Amino acid sequence: MEKKIDILKEKLKLIRKYNHAIGIMYFDFETIVPVKAREEEADVLDYFSNELFKLSHNKEMDELVIDLYNHKEKLDDELDKKLVEYLYESYEKNKNITPEFDLKMSNIFSRSYNTWLEAKEKKDYKIFMPVFKDVIDISKQAIELRDNRLPNIYDEMLSDCEKGLIQEDLDPFFNELKEGLLELLSKIKASKHVIRDDFLSRNVPIYKQEAFSKYLLELNGYDFSKGVLSTTEHPFTSNVARNDARVTTHYYEDMFLSNIFSIIHEGGHAIFMQNERDIDHDHFINDHITNGMHESVSRFYENIVGRSKEYIHLIYPKLIETFEEFKDVSEEELYEAVNIVKPSLIRTEADEVTYGLHIIVRYEMEKLIVNNKISIEEIPHKWNELYKQYLGVDVPNDSEGVLQDVHWTSGFGYFPSYAIGNCYNAMYLNRLKNELNFEELILRGDFASINKWMKENVFVHANVLTPKEWIKELTGESLSPKAFLAYLNEKYSKIYRF
Amino acid sequence: MEKKIDILKEKLKLIRKYNHAIGIMYFDFETIVPVKAREEEADVLDYFSNELFKLSHNKEMDELVIDLYNHKEKLDDELDKKLVEYLYESYEKNKNITPEFDLKMSNIFSRSYNTWLEAKEKKDYKIFMPVFKDVIDISKQAIELRDNRLPNIYDEMLSDCEKGLIQEDLDPFFNELKEGLLELLSKIKASKHVIRDDFLSRNVPIYKQEAFSKYLLELNGYDFSKGVLSTTEHPFTSNVARNDARVTTHYYEDMFLSNIFSIIHEGGHAIFMQNERDIDHDHFINDHITNGMHESVSRFYENIVGRSKEYIHLIYPKLIETFEEFKDVSEEELYEAVNIVKPSLIRTEADEVTYGLHIIVRYEMEKLIVNNKISIEEIPHKWNELYKQYLGVDVPNDSEGVLQDVHWTSGFGYFPSYAIGNCYNAMYLNRLKNELNFEELILRGDFASINKWMKENVFVHANVLTPKEWIKELTGESLSPKAFLAYLNEKYSKIYRF
Repeated sequence: MEKKIDILKEKLKLIRKYNHAIGIMYFDFETIVPVKAREEEADVLDYFSNELFKLSHNKEMDELVIDLYNHKEKLDDELDKKLVEYLYESYEKNKNITPEFDLKMSNIFSRSYNTWLEAKEKKDYKIFMPVFKDVIDISKQAIELRDNRLPNIYDEMLSDCEKGLIQEDLDPFFNELKEGLLELLSKIKASKHVIRDDFLSRNVPIYKQEAFSKYLLELNGYDFSKGVLSTTEHPFTSNVARNDARVTTHYYEDMFLSNIFSIIHEGGHAIFMQNERDIDHDHFINDHITNGMHESVSRFYENIVGRSKEYIHLIYPKLIETFEEFKDVSEEELYEAVNIVKPSLIRTEADEVTYGLHIIVRYEMEKLIVNNKISIEEIPHKWNELYKQYLGVDVPNDSEGVLQDVHWTSGFGYFPSYAIGNCYNAMYLNRLKNELNFEELILRGDFASINKWMKENVFVHANVLTPKEWIKELTGESLSPKAFLAYLNEKYSKIYRF
Repeated sequence: MEKKIDILKEKLKLIRKYNHAIGIMYFDFETIVPVKAREEEADVLDYFSNELFKLSHNKEMDELVIDLYNHKEKLDDELDKKLVEYLYESYEKNKNITPEFDLKMSNIFSRSYNTWLEAKEKKDYKIFMPVFKDVIDISKQAIELRDNRLPNIYDEMLSDCEKGLIQEDLDPFFNELKEGLLELLSKIKASKHVIRDDFLSRNVPIYKQEAFSKYLLELNGYDFSKGVLSTTEHPFTSNVARNDARVTTHYYEDMFLSNIFSIIHEGGHAIFMQNERDIDHDHFINDHITNGMHESVSRFYENIVGRSKEYIHLIYPKLIETFEEFKDVSEEELYEAVNIVKPSLIRTEADEVTYGLHIIVRYEMEKLIVNNKISIEEIPHKWNELYKQYLGVDVPNDSEGVLQDVHWTSGFGYFPSYAIGNCYNAMYLNRLKNELNFEELILRGDFASINKWMKENVFVHANVLTPKEWIKELTGESLSPKAFLAYLNEKYSKIYRF
């Protein structure tokens, strides 16, 4: 078995080269490719992704993985065992997926992405609808091809994103969250406190925002020798290689806060990536962090740190120095403005309180879509209805409604991770505050200490534990929205004086 | 044969995908990869380049190419014939190169590039020397492996860059050029005319340079829907795909002209790329433009257009508007400053007159190196001696001397192309001026008309003619420095009043 694991690792080295190449191409595609070269580049990406699929799933590889899995107790190294388990899991999920099916799926996702861009620009869901149907169908087919799967397809999709968490867990979780958020929101709405927001749409040149973004990333502990900052349409972070965690952002001249919190959020993902254990890389089990774990960290930096009184105090002098446009804005006014609660249409611009409601709309929509409870034509109408119901807003067009997010161009199950992440981080925040003088460290800008704690506690076992095991190890408890709701209530009762 | 050509084209489609992928990765490597990810990315690049080599050169492919070549008269399409000839040529050059040899060569070039960076930073040729020896050896070995080759290795290298031009052609060419340049330079040195240059090192923020670079590229006719502008250490242009010609530059706060002429030069390469014929792409014979042809075009835009009185008049108002730093500089002062002649150490910063002398130093050095007329230890000494002799300058260290250019990290034969390009463009300039009102078009910023002429005359057959055929078709004459020397004498006698 020890010799076989070496054979396996040789194959994984090659697979890693393909992943690396595709990572570079994907990053290029999302950040820089000229408009008339998009289509050809997408073809190249699909081709190499399909080659990667063939390298990862073929008779020889499958037999090797099955053999190792059946004799894994003979492996001395615990992480080798973990690797074999992960590969077996992937084998189980993919064994009935042919390379042709995989390519067909990539092509549909590429086409749906391009069509979505067009539909969004033209604010017309009907343009997107036919290919959206293909996305729904092929995403479900891909699950149906699995031999050993959960009876409900959406459960399987959810578990692909956040292993072990299914509708049975998420329905009560989201109900409790929804109730708490709506209650808090009604208190905020009733508050007479007025927050100054006139300066939020002031024009700020992009080169100043660029300089400030670099300052923030360095301040928070992002290592530029192992990453870069680029621009894109929809910000993301990309783990291109072991020493290459790339952050992207989008600068708007008239929404400087959008970039600032995007940078802190994506920087959080990147700090997590830059601090994965070397042994996880050496054992080819890196990249097994779930979406919920990742979002917990990115939203920890974005909200718990980035929107705190202490962080605003820390960055205020540099902000005023960089943007003389805001000289008339006090530190307190800035703190309140980054925490304004206002039900709105767009998820990515939502505040901490209403954000969860945006997710709940998507969770409920995905349940309806994947469980065949809604026709494809009815989707925008239902979306708009839920926005009215939970957020009290009228959706003026599809671009600001059902077409706003990119996620559904390639499947379902991701959205809940954002809300789950918010709840994870509020849970481990309580432990962090017990062990460190958190506010004091932020005031001093001592991110070395904060990141060290995150590395030793939050990051350390993320590649080897399931989310349920991980949050239990970290906090002694199971996923619940309680800590998050308590955190919100404490923070916002002070801001809105109730 | 018609069926075989289709089989061939299917293979070339796949090869094009690999070229596209490698183009993206190479661009990433040169523009953005973080420092600690360089080595792993270089490995990935070498791996896929080697896979590309294996796809391009293998028994099946060789047999197909030989068969088609031996029956090419049966092909109906002239461009199909041309394709088969090109592939046969490539087969002849590579048939004895094993994939292992190819990979070894890539690895040496990657290593030499990294070592060169270090040596240049530390200003120490001795650091570079051992790997430079490997570069020399393997570059020569690669030529020696060819069955049908010119007896002299350096001739073969020269002909790889500028097909058909060898030392027998270049020795008299460079002698005439050298004589003409030295004579002109002595007249300029004797001139009492003083050109104002105090403003050239004024600090200019990079964001202003960025804005101005975009203005220049658009003005000159570069199409941003089929390309992008990025930054790099050593500017280059990259033909990533049919609709993807990428320009790079390097901004220096205290040398704003460096970026401006870099942009115009690289933009020239890109305009050439963006105007390759569709049928050349369709027949897989694009990318057969020689270095000399390409440099003729880039240096046409950089010098003949970019450093002309009319172009300076055209861009002066925008320049003053963008950079208020130069409000006290008149149009005439700017024109003279961009044309100051001053023998210097660095090729890429040289003026039009002394530039050729930098190339002649390199040509003479390459002859010595490849023809075994100098030991590896003596190279810097000889370099410094030639700089003293031709340019009259003392080389203070290796970074500003023999280590300044990247080219020798991966072989020999490219440098002459720059000087050849200067002479080609001066030759076709005469015809252009006969057929168009050139100065008037520049004054009006009518690059549509200039580029149309370039496309219909200079670009049109570049992929299907040898340089000798091409310049003959274009001008009725053979390569000579006469037109270039006449152009320089006319221009600089006016500037320096002699």
